[in-house]
Amino acid sequence: MSAQLPHAALIARDLIRCPSVTPAEGGALAFLEQLLGQAGFKVDRVIFKDEDTPDVENLFATIGSGKPHFVFAGHTDVVPAGNAADWRHSPFEGEVSDGILYGRGAVDMKGGIASFAAAALEFVGARGADFGGTISFLITGDEEGPAVNGTVKLLDWAEKQGHVFDACIVGEPTNPNALGDAIKVGRRGSLSGIVTVNGVQGHAAYPHLANNPIPGLMRLMSALDAVEFDRGNERFEPSNLEIVTFDVANPAFNVIPARAQARFNIRFNDEWTLDTLKAKITATLEEAAVDGLDWTLEFRRDCSESFLTKDDTLIGALSDAVEASTGRRPELSTGGGTSDARFIKNYCPVVEFGLVGQTMHKVDECTKVADLDHLAKIYRVFLDSYFAVKA
Amino acid sequence: MSAQLPHAALIARDLIRCPSVTPAEGGALAFLEQLLGQAGFKVDRVIFKDEDTPDVENLFATIGSGKPHFVFAGHTDVVPAGNAADWRHSPFEGEVSDGILYGRGAVDMKGGIASFAAAALEFVGARGADFGGTISFLITGDEEGPAVNGTVKLLDWAEKQGHVFDACIVGEPTNPNALGDAIKVGRRGSLSGIVTVNGVQGHAAYPHLANNPIPGLMRLMSALDAVEFDRGNERFEPSNLEIVTFDVANPAFNVIPARAQARFNIRFNDEWTLDTLKAKITATLEEAAVDGLDWTLEFRRDCSESFLTKDDTLIGALSDAVEASTGRRPELSTGGGTSDARFIKNYCPVVEFGLVGQTMHKVDECTKVADLDHLAKIYRVFLDSYFAVKA
Ligand SMILES: [Zn+2]
Ligand SMILES: [Zn+2]
Repeated sequence: MSAQLPHAALIARDLIRCPSVTPAEGGALAFLEQLLGQAGFKVDRVIFKDEDTPDVENLFATIGSGKPHFVFAGHTDVVPAGNAADWRHSPFEGEVSDGILYGRGAVDMKGGIASFAAAALEFVGARGADFGGTISFLITGDEEGPAVNGTVKLLDWAEKQGHVFDACIVGEPTNPNALGDAIKVGRRGSLSGIVTVNGVQGHAAYPHLANNPIPGLMRLMSALDAVEFDRGNERFEPSNLEIVTFDVANPAFNVIPARAQARFNIRFNDEWTLDTLKAKITATLEEAAVDGLDWTLEFRRDCSESFLTKDDTLIGALSDAVEASTGRRPELSTGGGTSDARFIKNYCPVVEFGLVGQTMHKVDECTKVADLDHLAKIYRVFLDSYFAVKA
Repeated sequence: MSAQLPHAALIARDLIRCPSVTPAEGGALAFLEQLLGQAGFKVDRVIFKDEDTPDVENLFATIGSGKPHFVFAGHTDVVPAGNAADWRHSPFEGEVSDGILYGRGAVDMKGGIASFAAAALEFVGARGADFGGTISFLITGDEEGPAVNGTVKLLDWAEKQGHVFDACIVGEPTNPNALGDAIKVGRRGSLSGIVTVNGVQGHAAYPHLANNPIPGLMRLMSALDAVEFDRGNERFEPSNLEIVTFDVANPAFNVIPARAQARFNIRFNDEWTLDTLKAKITATLEEAAVDGLDWTLEFRRDCSESFLTKDDTLIGALSDAVEASTGRRPELSTGGGTSDARFIKNYCPVVEFGLVGQTMHKVDECTKVADLDHLAKIYRVFLDSYFAVKA
């Protein structure tokens, strides 16, 4: 059976067998170190530390020299399996059944790394290390976790090593239904905040001695919820705010509570920046607050600007490779959540393309074996094209 | 020092020394049994049990015979002391300092029981057991707790023993500032409910795949909060609704939650019954709910109707006794929270009059020793008058 598996599937299976739930390395980076090292890559394993979060291992591998410098980015860490008893296929065994490879990380995103590794090894095998440029792997073990000791610090580390990147593909699963559906060429930004209203606690039978914070907070949050930030544009979906929680936690029916707090998250497009959006939110709340309301607004620090990559060489070469292999021109999408691309875009043009995402983070996460091989071929065609064009 | 204390203060001090935090008897009922038994009362101690709440001891004492049958109602159980280190005076020692008696229950309501006991013993001592009527004590150990194994069951028990009451005074603290401020002649009703909105959980970046329940619940609760139920009348304050909690408990900024729940409590006057009020709330929510909103409304079972006592003999005799002793005609009030009077009103006319309530349930709960004596005198004048009138 194994002998019939394409190279990308063999690599993916070996990676799945490493239980690398964030922040555990699980053997996944050691496996890549050996695989890429044997093919002539210079491999660095880098540990980043921080006061508040666990130490995390990362890997940087590079081959070739000079420009253009293309980098493939990804993560070997995975989200937990949850209740393993819910899986029909064991989450860390890499079982293949009826042409499907099962396991945590199959699509998010050990499969993406495996396909790119297979493509890069084949490309280097065919062209030698002197192919007219540089190919690097930027692999983190902290994408599904706090993302503090991962890509952000690895980019900074690589820059200090003298690496200047010209283009990047992140191998996250980007296809909703079938390989070739979509390349992600940007992401909406994300801004979160906390709104608190302070009142005065008291007995429900003596409301004149108390001051209930709940109606005031409902008024503020209703005003935020009613804002139409924009209607989207040809590049992006509309900006959208969600009130994600609203809490008082008062167990007593006869007590008026002292405090109420709500949290919101906004996914916003390129018609806003963090600054203009913060100003809009602040003004909306100020306008909605009645005189004397004791309220505060705090924006969370883990926010990000929206971005849109416009590099025609990168997007063109990848779109052509997808179309050549699938017969379909991929949609250029900016939908969905954030990824490490939000950090990479500060260093070079970045797009995302990987497997079909339907089972990511779910029980019995899986990918077609054929998709792994197919994706490896697309990456290989891309590399041929990218280094031909730039050479 | 003790020798100089009036009888009511001595009884109050002995009761405070019994640590009868609900549901503990703490020796308080045993003390009353002995005190009243020695004076000729027939005393029954009755334990009530229930599946869901602790067993609770209660006491019924009676003297005299025939009509009119006057009953004094109260509770010997007290709320916990909280952090005893916060007290300047030990909560269960009954310390007297500068004419002030300190301790948990000093005003709520061991002091009230002590004053009535002193008055009744003096009255019976002067008039003998053949004073032309009956005086009973209806004392529970479950007023501050679930109130399941207390007054409700003791009233039923007394009825089955053949007791028919003509009038009742509950000795709860009713005076906001000074003895003689107010008699409570009724109470607003209380109705609580829970409103739940069910949505569909999802990722904040994919709102079209989710359905956020928070805006819908804010809409429903804002509609409830905006209702002006009435403007009150000469007998009662306006009915008032408080949203006492609003909870989602979603810790993640990137997750749209599945469910939101709010709870409310209404204190309502005699312009409403539980039935008309439930109908009004249901109609308000139905009108506010947008099409397709998945919401539920559940009323709590521990609700009560408002009531207003109109017995001129009872209110007149008590008001006269207060005025004779304080020089002030007490206000006839219906404000504040509920009490066991809501159960007693189904058996006979009931009013409430006791000590000054400012320190109830607080650290260093206390009463002036003079107030205990003063209250005993008011109760004594009332008994003289009540049994003179009815005889
Ligand atoms: Zn991922
Ligand atoms: Zn009380």
